Amino acid sequence: MRNIKLTLQYDGANYSGWQIQNKEKTVQGTVENAVARITGEHTRVTAAARTDAGVHAFGQVVSLKTQSRLQTDVICRALNANLPHDIKIIEAVECPLDFHPRYDAKSKIYSYIIRGEGGFAVFLRRYSWYIPYTLSRGLGTMRQAAGYLIGEHDFSSFRGSGCGSKNPVRRIIDIEISEISSIDFMTFKLNIPIIKIRIEANAFLRHMVRNIVGTLVEIGRGKIAPLKLKEILHLKDRRLAGPTAPACGLFLERVQY
Amino acid sequence: MRNIKLTLQYDGANYSGWQIQNKEKTVQGTVENAVARITGEHTRVTAAARTDAGVHAFGQVVSLKTQSRLQTDVICRALNANLPHDIKIIEAVECPLDFHPRYDAKSKIYSYIIRGEGGFAVFLRRYSWYIPYTLSRGLGTMRQAAGYLIGEHDFSSFRGSGCGSKNPVRRIIDIEISEISSIDFMTFKLNIPIIKIRIEANAFLRHMVRNIVGTLVEIGRGKIAPLKLKEILHLKDRRLAGPTAPACGLFLERVQY
Repeated sequence: MRNIKLTLQYDGANYSGWQIQNKEKTVQGTVENAVARITGEHTRVTAAARTDAGVHAFGQVVSLKTQSRLQTDVICRALNANLPHDIKIIEAVECPLDFHPRYDAKSKIYSYIIRGEGGFAVFLRRYSWYIPYTLSRGLGTMRQAAGYLIGEHDFSSFRGSGCGSKNPVRRIIDIEISEISSIDFMTFKLNIPIIKIRIEANAFLRHMVRNIVGTLVEIGRGKIAPLKLKEILHLKDRRLAGPTAPACGLFLERVQY
Repeated sequence: MRNIKLTLQYDGANYSGWQIQNKEKTVQGTVENAVARITGEHTRVTAAARTDAGVHAFGQVVSLKTQSRLQTDVICRALNANLPHDIKIIEAVECPLDFHPRYDAKSKIYSYIIRGEGGFAVFLRRYSWYIPYTLSRGLGTMRQAAGYLIGEHDFSSFRGSGCGSKNPVRRIIDIEISEISSIDFMTFKLNIPIIKIRIEANAFLRHMVRNIVGTLVEIGRGKIAPLKLKEILHLKDRRLAGPTAPACGLFLERVQY
């Protein structure tokens, strides 16, 4: 038996998330079908992050246990030849048999992209959340509030319903909020203000990034005072935090080991 | 009767081109349906360019003849509220009754985006043509060949079948070929080599940009000598030029009046 670590990129717009389901098209199901076609094995692959429906990935990490003797670069090419154009294996390397993409991860980085006021954005609609107002003046309060989330906390206030984790404590290593005044799309300059929220943590609860982003946007708009976030975190009540930001703006950027 | 000049942007991936057809979903049909919904009028709109299936537009120009008394900014907002997310009106202004988007255009600018070797590109696949080799060393010969096309010529060798134009003479004002070593996507740096071919002409024949691009790529790969392009142009025979580049890489960038 070998264990192959795959790094993959996908456009999540057309998938019901990572995790395999009975009827819906999922990234996991699609990858497992491609594996079956090249190895003849019907095997489960394990991912570092079970991304939600519509969430994208630049660097999802997956482990594949196989009896196949194919070289890793052949596996990479053969899988890509059997995958649709919106899923791509960007690396395949041999790893120890006991490597586990989720348990062994030191941290994960997610980025969330928000398009602000005035951005007509036919080409960005699948990859960002449009909010019809500006957050420019709210960036300071958003950064102040984000600061309260850094460190080890019980994140129950930002945990989505149906979260399977027993322990709601996670450690946020960093939150970076940046404003980009104009964005390039395929070398075309678009005059669209973008806000990017990049969060690194040892692990995440279900919907945690999207709930944090939804809450930070409420703070940026002045609907919630930044200091209030300390209280929301402390009270461990999901109803106190802001709404869940939509999936389309979220990218699993990297998993670090 | 009023004449309204609309500038619109669309992601062409899900449309069978601009021009209305019986059964297929087209950009024109979709815009006319939105017009009917807000004005009650079943009217034809006229475009500067009849883009092919899958071709995108940053600045298509369309004229709308209407009896409606709605202000132009109201028309703009109301149309957008009735259009799908992949078509957007970015400007609506009053124009003279005899304004014609195609006949009055001084020039049109198209850009074509090619992704080179090694670019895994889940997020760019709808908006560029992937070629599995590098053109870096061929850029000089491509630019040399492109130079022969500038000016007024009979472009029969680059005219797609079914082109309805009586006169195959067009005037190419400029062709710019640029190489970009890495591209930004939604603020994420992708290490993907891009070649952009930007063509400005007084007008274009059917498939003319895509046929020129397909031929320039053959030249960049060394399959056709650059000087040969002079002969191809001179012989007015479509069979001599290169293949038609796919629609997905093509953007109608701007129409100038």
